[in-house]
Amino acid sequence: MKYYDQISGQSIHRLEFLSDGVFAICFTLLILDIKVPIAEGIHSEHDLAHAFATLSPKLAAYLLSFMTLGIFWVAHSAQFYYIKKSDRKHTWINIFFLLFVSVIPFTTAFLSEYIAFKFSVALYWLNLFLLGQMLFFNWRYVEKHHLMDENIEQKRDIGKAIRRRGIIAQICYVAGALLCLINNYLSIGILMGIQAGFALGLFSRRMKNNKK
Amino acid sequence: MKYYDQISGQSIHRLEFLSDGVFAICFTLLILDIKVPIAEGIHSEHDLAHAFATLSPKLAAYLLSFMTLGIFWVAHSAQFYYIKKSDRKHTWINIFFLLFVSVIPFTTAFLSEYIAFKFSVALYWLNLFLLGQMLFFNWRYVEKHHLMDENIEQKRDIGKAIRRRGIIAQICYVAGALLCLINNYLSIGILMGIQAGFALGLFSRRMKNNKK
Amino acid sequence: MKYYDQISGQSIHRLEFLSDGVFAICFTLLILDIKVPIAEGIHSEHDLAHAFATLSPKLAAYLLSFMTLGIFWVAHSAQFYYIKKSDRKHTWINIFFLLFVSVIPFTTAFLSEYIAFKFSVALYWLNLFLLGQMLFFNWRYVEKHHLMDENIEQKRDIGKAIRRRGIIAQICYVAGALLCLINNYLSIGILMGIQAGFALGLFSRRMKNNKK
Amino acid sequence: MKYYDQISGQSIHRLEFLSDGVFAICFTLLILDIKVPIAEGIHSEHDLAHAFATLSPKLAAYLLSFMTLGIFWVAHSAQFYYIKKSDRKHTWINIFFLLFVSVIPFTTAFLSEYIAFKFSVALYWLNLFLLGQMLFFNWRYVEKHHLMDENIEQKRDIGKAIRRRGIIAQICYVAGALLCLINNYLSIGILMGIQAGFALGLFSRRMKNNKK
Repeated sequence: MKYYDQISGQSIHRLEFLSDGVFAICFTLLILDIKVPIAEGIHSEHDLAHAFATLSPKLAAYLLSFMTLGIFWVAHSAQFYYIKKSDRKHTWINIFFLLFVSVIPFTTAFLSEYIAFKFSVALYWLNLFLLGQMLFFNWRYVEKHHLMDENIEQKRDIGKAIRRRGIIAQICYVAGALLCLINNYLSIGILMGIQAGFALGLFSRRMKNNKK
Repeated sequence: MKYYDQISGQSIHRLEFLSDGVFAICFTLLILDIKVPIAEGIHSEHDLAHAFATLSPKLAAYLLSFMTLGIFWVAHSAQFYYIKKSDRKHTWINIFFLLFVSVIPFTTAFLSEYIAFKFSVALYWLNLFLLGQMLFFNWRYVEKHHLMDENIEQKRDIGKAIRRRGIIAQICYVAGALLCLINNYLSIGILMGIQAGFALGLFSRRMKNNKK
Repeated sequence: MKYYDQISGQSIHRLEFLSDGVFAICFTLLILDIKVPIAEGIHSEHDLAHAFATLSPKLAAYLLSFMTLGIFWVAHSAQFYYIKKSDRKHTWINIFFLLFVSVIPFTTAFLSEYIAFKFSVALYWLNLFLLGQMLFFNWRYVEKHHLMDENIEQKRDIGKAIRRRGIIAQICYVAGALLCLINNYLSIGILMGIQAGFALGLFSRRMKNNKK
Repeated sequence: MKYYDQISGQSIHRLEFLSDGVFAICFTLLILDIKVPIAEGIHSEHDLAHAFATLSPKLAAYLLSFMTLGIFWVAHSAQFYYIKKSDRKHTWINIFFLLFVSVIPFTTAFLSEYIAFKFSVALYWLNLFLLGQMLFFNWRYVEKHHLMDENIEQKRDIGKAIRRRGIIAQICYVAGALLCLINNYLSIGILMGIQAGFALGLFSRRMKNNKK
């Protein structure tokens, strides 16, 4: 006898398509929050440049969330590079991961609208935290249920590297978010710095020394 | 002589791409219905937290539909995991399935806007019902026209498991929706409970006992 | 020496991804034009059902365009099922095809907003016509430049079937659209009937007789 | 010991999915900026045709950006046709490329809203410039780190052709944009002409003579 829960959730390549689709849309939906300034009262090049400049908090939030999405997409595809099987539970861990991905355009718009409020920094941080947690659950489940490609060497080292990065990121995010108790702009600036650091690979200097 | 209807609708991998694309967009469009509260009248952290709290019916509807989409995506990919061929009619059954998928952001927004009305629960249920029906038609067509992978063992058991789950789900949905005759919030709460049950695998306890 | 135009446009699988992506988004964007009725003045189930009923022109336009997109997606994937190579010009024919796909949500919204105007029927027809033309150019180019899979038998019959269907569809569309000179609703109704006929396979009775 | 930066960013096929997803959405989001004219005051076919005609700057901007996206999608897939490996840095170069892709619907809306302002031409040009730059960085990185398919012959010629086209395009864009110092409409018209030239392959006459 077969149970539905045994036969569902096995399509790893479709899980990858779905994930890339959700990421691609979120990457692009972010821009919808940046509205072209209203023409009224704009009479000169100077007025227009000024109106564009007032979009800067929106543009900063856009850049922050684009990097955030990039970081979590890279992390997700790094894990899936080694995953060769899936099951129902693994699929649902990933669907909930995608829930927190799809929420980013909202928490980003919230942050850029209420840039001076601690509440919006906390909400954004919560989003980052839950994204990281779901990836952590994903990897733990993969290791426990042997969903990795059998032929991969150094499985343990790969697992360690993934967990280490996850922990470092979560600590950075908490620390950055807590700075809002001192000053909101400082906190957002530091969070942007952290994401830029991960995106540009500034935190991986040690690697270069160890590379053969 | 060849007829167009014989040569069209054979691309099973493109049907999968299209389906994953439509699902990915629906997953993400749901968030567009949750608008950031308007800044006017918000002066303190407390005001902002309060404004956020008023979004809770929207957030509940979001969560409900995210789980709904997840359940039907898992069901769709579970069927396609065993399907290896397609034809024109099979393709069109799936396009109409996607029609009812793409309608979810609308029926969800309708439900969250008119949360106290039986009409919106009925509309949402109708959406769930038609999604389930299309998947049922899909599987029946696959079995009748031998579109499954020839090498799969236990075809009959797989078919049984898929149909059993479909029937259980449809009964749950009808029962949950009918509760709106007593109380709308109860009905929506029970529907959320059903979807959470399917998502979190709470209804599959028996499986664990039977697993080797 | 190599020219850029010789090395670009060879990725047939990416052309398929891009096409499925554009179709998936258009399928889903259509629903964004159907707005949930505004709560003001809605006090009873009856009011809400009535408000929903006023959405029927929008829903009809939605159904029409969903079927239109389905028909052209099926036609596109039917052609690509036999295509194994691509080049720069073939790629650009397809990008312009996608241009007319991505315009459907607009011409649909236009039609549903100005349902009694000949201009909107003409605009919608023009969209259908150009979609068909691009597919026609696509196939002609494929045949002329031998982009089909070499192993396919009955190439000539396949080509004939594709062209025959294209011509039948274009004639139906012109005839249906011209009916707006008599009555707009008649014209739109007939166009919906044509699309439903193609979608449900009502026009393929002869095939069944010829099938072995 | 393994570092996260060594194990992330290796999934070239997912990078392709993500890119095609972002492009597909941008292709389609462009149309959202073209709103159906408001029904008020439209009483005759003539009024409607007139209202449609007022959309022409929007339609021109739509066509311009559709061609722009097409050109950069073709360029991106031309490069990836030869790329067989990826790493973390290569992945991030591409994520930043996608950032400038996803920004196109905004710079396009900006241009069509402020069509008479030099600032919007400069902004649009900047977008084109940065897209080209990221593709240039992408290719340079690919060559330097040997990410190309080993079996490809004429690697040097392919590299030359890609770079030559990039430089020609950048010169054309600068020249076209600078014309806004004389007249904005002239500048936009010339930019449209350049993109049409690339799209329709008007600039590749020499190739035909050299083709065997």
